[in-house]
Amino acid sequence: MKNRLKTSLVALLLSSAAFSQTWIWYPGDYEIWLGNQMNNRRTERGAFFPPFWKSDSHYAIVEFSKQLDLAEPEEIFIAAEGKYNVKLDGKLQFGMPQTMLIPAGKHNLNIKVWNQATPPTVYVKGKTINSDSSWKVTFEDKEWIDESGKASDTSATLYMDAGSWNFDGATQLPSQFQLSRTPMQAVTSQANGEGIVYDFGKETFGFITLENVSGKGNVHIYYGESMEEALDKEYCETLDKLYVQPGSITDLSVNETYELTPEYTFDNSKAFRYVYVVAEKGVSIGNVSMQYEYLPLEYRGTFRCNDEELNRIWDIGAYTMHLTSREFFIDGIKRDRWVWSGDAIQSYLMNYYLFFDNESVKRTIWLLRGKDPVTSHINTIMDYTFFWFLSIYDYYLYSGDRHFVQQIYPKMQSLMKYVLGRTNKEGMVEGQTGDWVFVDWADGYLDKKGELAFEQVLLCKSLETMALCAELVDDKSDEAKYEKLANELRSKLIPAFWSEEKQALVHNRIDGKQSEAVTRYANMFATFFNYLAPEQQETIKSSVLLNDSILKITTPYMRFYELEALCALGEQEEVMKEMKAYWGGMLNEGATSFWEKYNPDESGTQHLAMYGRPYGKSLCHAWGASPIYLLGKYYLGVQPTSAGYETYSVTPTLGGLRWMEGTVPTPFGDIYVYMDRKTIKIKSDGGAGTLYVPTKKGRKAIEIEAGKEYKISYPIK
Amino acid sequence: MKNRLKTSLVALLLSSAAFSQTWIWYPGDYEIWLGNQMNNRRTERGAFFPPFWKSDSHYAIVEFSKQLDLAEPEEIFIAAEGKYNVKLDGKLQFGMPQTMLIPAGKHNLNIKVWNQATPPTVYVKGKTINSDSSWKVTFEDKEWIDESGKASDTSATLYMDAGSWNFDGATQLPSQFQLSRTPMQAVTSQANGEGIVYDFGKETFGFITLENVSGKGNVHIYYGESMEEALDKEYCETLDKLYVQPGSITDLSVNETYELTPEYTFDNSKAFRYVYVVAEKGVSIGNVSMQYEYLPLEYRGTFRCNDEELNRIWDIGAYTMHLTSREFFIDGIKRDRWVWSGDAIQSYLMNYYLFFDNESVKRTIWLLRGKDPVTSHINTIMDYTFFWFLSIYDYYLYSGDRHFVQQIYPKMQSLMKYVLGRTNKEGMVEGQTGDWVFVDWADGYLDKKGELAFEQVLLCKSLETMALCAELVDDKSDEAKYEKLANELRSKLIPAFWSEEKQALVHNRIDGKQSEAVTRYANMFATFFNYLAPEQQETIKSSVLLNDSILKITTPYMRFYELEALCALGEQEEVMKEMKAYWGGMLNEGATSFWEKYNPDESGTQHLAMYGRPYGKSLCHAWGASPIYLLGKYYLGVQPTSAGYETYSVTPTLGGLRWMEGTVPTPFGDIYVYMDRKTIKIKSDGGAGTLYVPTKKGRKAIEIEAGKEYKISYPIK
Repeated sequence: MKNRLKTSLVALLLSSAAFSQTWIWYPGDYEIWLGNQMNNRRTERGAFFPPFWKSDSHYAIVEFSKQLDLAEPEEIFIAAEGKYNVKLDGKLQFGMPQTMLIPAGKHNLNIKVWNQATPPTVYVKGKTINSDSSWKVTFEDKEWIDESGKASDTSATLYMDAGSWNFDGATQLPSQFQLSRTPMQAVTSQANGEGIVYDFGKETFGFITLENVSGKGNVHIYYGESMEEALDKEYCETLDKLYVQPGSITDLSVNETYELTPEYTFDNSKAFRYVYVVAEKGVSIGNVSMQYEYLPLEYRGTFRCNDEELNRIWDIGAYTMHLTSREFFIDGIKRDRWVWSGDAIQSYLMNYYLFFDNESVKRTIWLLRGKDPVTSHINTIMDYTFFWFLSIYDYYLYSGDRHFVQQIYPKMQSLMKYVLGRTNKEGMVEGQTGDWVFVDWADGYLDKKGELAFEQVLLCKSLETMALCAELVDDKSDEAKYEKLANELRSKLIPAFWSEEKQALVHNRIDGKQSEAVTRYANMFATFFNYLAPEQQETIKSSVLLNDSILKITTPYMRFYELEALCALGEQEEVMKEMKAYWGGMLNEGATSFWEKYNPDESGTQHLAMYGRPYGKSLCHAWGASPIYLLGKYYLGVQPTSAGYETYSVTPTLGGLRWMEGTVPTPFGDIYVYMDRKTIKIKSDGGAGTLYVPTKKGRKAIEIEAGKEYKISYPIK
Repeated sequence: MKNRLKTSLVALLLSSAAFSQTWIWYPGDYEIWLGNQMNNRRTERGAFFPPFWKSDSHYAIVEFSKQLDLAEPEEIFIAAEGKYNVKLDGKLQFGMPQTMLIPAGKHNLNIKVWNQATPPTVYVKGKTINSDSSWKVTFEDKEWIDESGKASDTSATLYMDAGSWNFDGATQLPSQFQLSRTPMQAVTSQANGEGIVYDFGKETFGFITLENVSGKGNVHIYYGESMEEALDKEYCETLDKLYVQPGSITDLSVNETYELTPEYTFDNSKAFRYVYVVAEKGVSIGNVSMQYEYLPLEYRGTFRCNDEELNRIWDIGAYTMHLTSREFFIDGIKRDRWVWSGDAIQSYLMNYYLFFDNESVKRTIWLLRGKDPVTSHINTIMDYTFFWFLSIYDYYLYSGDRHFVQQIYPKMQSLMKYVLGRTNKEGMVEGQTGDWVFVDWADGYLDKKGELAFEQVLLCKSLETMALCAELVDDKSDEAKYEKLANELRSKLIPAFWSEEKQALVHNRIDGKQSEAVTRYANMFATFFNYLAPEQQETIKSSVLLNDSILKITTPYMRFYELEALCALGEQEEVMKEMKAYWGGMLNEGATSFWEKYNPDESGTQHLAMYGRPYGKSLCHAWGASPIYLLGKYYLGVQPTSAGYETYSVTPTLGGLRWMEGTVPTPFGDIYVYMDRKTIKIKSDGGAGTLYVPTKKGRKAIEIEAGKEYKISYPIK
């Protein structure tokens, strides 16, 4: 089992940080509500297309409370989204007070808010009294009146620390949140058949704006990630239909009619590079432009090297990441626009090497988990439940944010209870009715029956994660319980799935019998979870990972792990070739963002098809951006070795490059790394680093102090 | 254990009834949402006062589906509250179609709706295709795309039958529901101090209307169920504050400003008889009237007799019931205006003898149960959880509506799981942290510690109810399980709580030791649940029920059961005296509706106080109306003996009256009963009745056929 990480100082800093006032809510509630807003924006050829799993809602009534100890009287300003009341020391105040004078001394301040449509939120601003995450929240305050007529509070209520984001101004209502927008023009436009096709030059996301529309008749807009898609009116994945008449314009997909103004911008954003605008005779349209929509994020991670193709791969990866980092980390921008756990965990990892935006990670984790009761796996997918567990420890490791683990831990418990309630007598998971056993989109048959080695490996790691998090929240009994379960399962993995004949983990076991199939999935995860003996690990490199007769991986999703496994085994040079071939291959096909799936054996419009639809494939998919992660973690070679980069290691590896340089973001600033064939330069803003420098025979550890610049010639002796 | 009731024909009729089109929703969801609207209208001196238990919300995304088999093509009209899509045979239709042509043949029609603010609802109207309870609904359709690119539905989804009420018109949007209103004028008005007090002649409920307001300044409105309360500006329970200026009027309790029009009616209704209007100098107000607000209900039950005081008790009881029968059955109209399970079960029972409005019963049961996970007892009160179970079988018995039992059964299971997860090693319940062990408001000490006999008796009956309902939904394994649990607990009741010395069930047992206290509660419930041996039952009549040294009951709530227990023991004459003394006592105090609590030993303004507040007591409380139930069930003597009155018994008992007559509503019409000291007349619209007529030595059974008039002289020989 992996070693426990020491508790980070950063975590302590984070949890005790005094924030200024900000809008607060029940943790997870705003995220769930905002997630519904986002997940429900998917359309398919003009039809609303909501998710097919349970969508939860915020608690409609939430009480916010804070214990005060004032040196002097203080006036506070109160705002809330919803109908609210205010109690000072248990006494209800008249109406919904917007200002209030709190006398000096110790007091209990309680604000209770009801809101069905949007989450109950509160904003309090005073000299010392400010709403922030130190406020407590509950959705059921067990207060009642006893026989004596007094309100008694023999509470069994679960109080949580309030959730917040960055709504720090009184008028910055959380329910009104919108991503940022910037007007953009098409690069070219060209008449084509009955309409005009506009090319915005690269994959993009936003709202089409039509200027100076007039006349009477229908206007159809066909969106395409490719030119072929935009021009294919029958099969393009997304479209809009308008009806124009003097003075008004009707969006036919939502039956909404608007006053006609000089600029008409659609309510719903779309993903596209090309837009084909077809107006009926009698309708005239001026310029067609767009409002680019994005989450403002700082590109903190950087990477440059002597190989321009690799630089372009990094740039396109970063752009792909930015397009898919929205209210939440979504899968792809054209089609699902949903939050999927297996996709999200990769976005988180890439994020740690690009934006290091903790808020987006936390929002996404809250949303994915939803509310109790658990009635199915996350996104209905068994593996995605396990990735959710794993992602929490990843987040802790990179951010050092132990407070978040404490907040989410009860939700981890109830989800794990659901999982364990569905294991077989071996303590292993098998797909049951309603479970989607996904693994990967494969160009070949993947058996989903019985005990899949892949799923058990993920379950085992999830149990270890539970034990680690139980320790973090100081739940000794849980820690022992999950450690025991993890150890039991782990001891069964090799006996159950390792085939001496094949020198690999087999794909699955049905009724206690190993199948004949070997796939890459379990083998690569077992590699970087260190579940294999060293000799087994070395063996599967050739028997599986670098063996062309084993079913190839054609999604960047599993390429991510495959290449990570190879990097972990020190195969950076091989991985560099693979990256250039695979992601370079997409670039050669004209990609301006990375795809959901890429099979180098296909050609032309075959690249656009998926799910049996000619344009079903997403050409901008978060999981396509993994070079961001691989280059940061395994070439620049920076990774935390204790939570929040309190300690970290740097193992720069050129992998065939002549030189490279870049920065990796951390909670305390950046770590800069430069390497060529003779020199390593490094500078870090904080933490205690260990740089591993190549020697003639191996490597040597050098301590890196914060703030100092190091320039080291190598190989050192 | 009580005998199982035969399955009713009425139930079969009900479940197969072809309804015309009506708005439909996920069962329970509209009820929960509407309940939040109602429960959140409580105010206390101008402050919003929401419930202190978990408030649930509707599912934000619901899919409605119907399998069709059309002889000919059919055009349908579709409306929905929310954003929606429509699938025909799995194919998504463009936009949100309002009409659609369905071809002849077999089809699957699916409509999926998203709505955060109000419940997703659907209305479909065609020649044969109409939205009704035969449609299926789900909140998570496990549909996904398999590798072949086809949508596959290996669903583990729980489909329910759609819920509905009476929103049968396309424009009758469920979310826009409001109770009915009728303008009413004050009976008198009189200057008093700085203001004018208006008397509306009796307890009432509605919205105050101010006419021709002008000038500038504050207007305060003080409401009173009594004159004392209205005039007590410092302590009246409810009030409103307005600020008037030229052109506008501001409701200060909600910070809302409105344009000043000739009539200003408040947004929130209040309960009152008296209204004290105090306008600052500089403000002028014309007439003050009200909009009486009510649920339209037919008074189907009737009762008249030779005793005018009893007639008035019945009338005031019926009015009290009507005032408290609103969107749901609430407790009292002035203060809580909330739905409480212990109060509601009595409203249901009274309702069966007055309105026989099944919809109100079902709405209230859905709301009280809320959603999973169960995190506390219903209303946080242990006994109220048990009353919820009991109420479902009561409802089935009176209505014959087996379909409802089927719909609610999964919620019964999960609530009982919660209860059984909190029993001690004896299988008994004890108050745990967060549990409110209520029993009753008593003018004396009630120990709530350890195992209360009262709670075990209710738990036992709840387990029996689970077994009965398991049988109704044909769940053999549950039936056996709950029967076993009920039998086990029942066999422990007498050994645990019966005291030979006291010849009664003691109040509680702590650490296996019987306490010294005897209270009425467990003894009377054990009586009408038949948990005592015949000799014990006879004994407790004198040792407890008619024993003045046992702590007296001062709430109509527990008087309800006390008098029912006496009636069940044949003590109608005694109960008649009690009814006249107790409810007649309230009338003598000037009651125009019945109270939350009445202690004949108190006088004057003592009658207004409760919970340590001078006007804390509710003077219109549903549980005050129990004579409605007692007179129908134990004097007219009508009660179902199988579900839905398929069979019923009539045991008329004058109880000291000279004559009486009345009707009792049933699913098939009414049962009319007349009795004087020599004659019984009876006529029933349906069912198979058994009339028990006094003989010289006992009674004789006579079969009553539907539609026939019977006139029988007695005592027969």
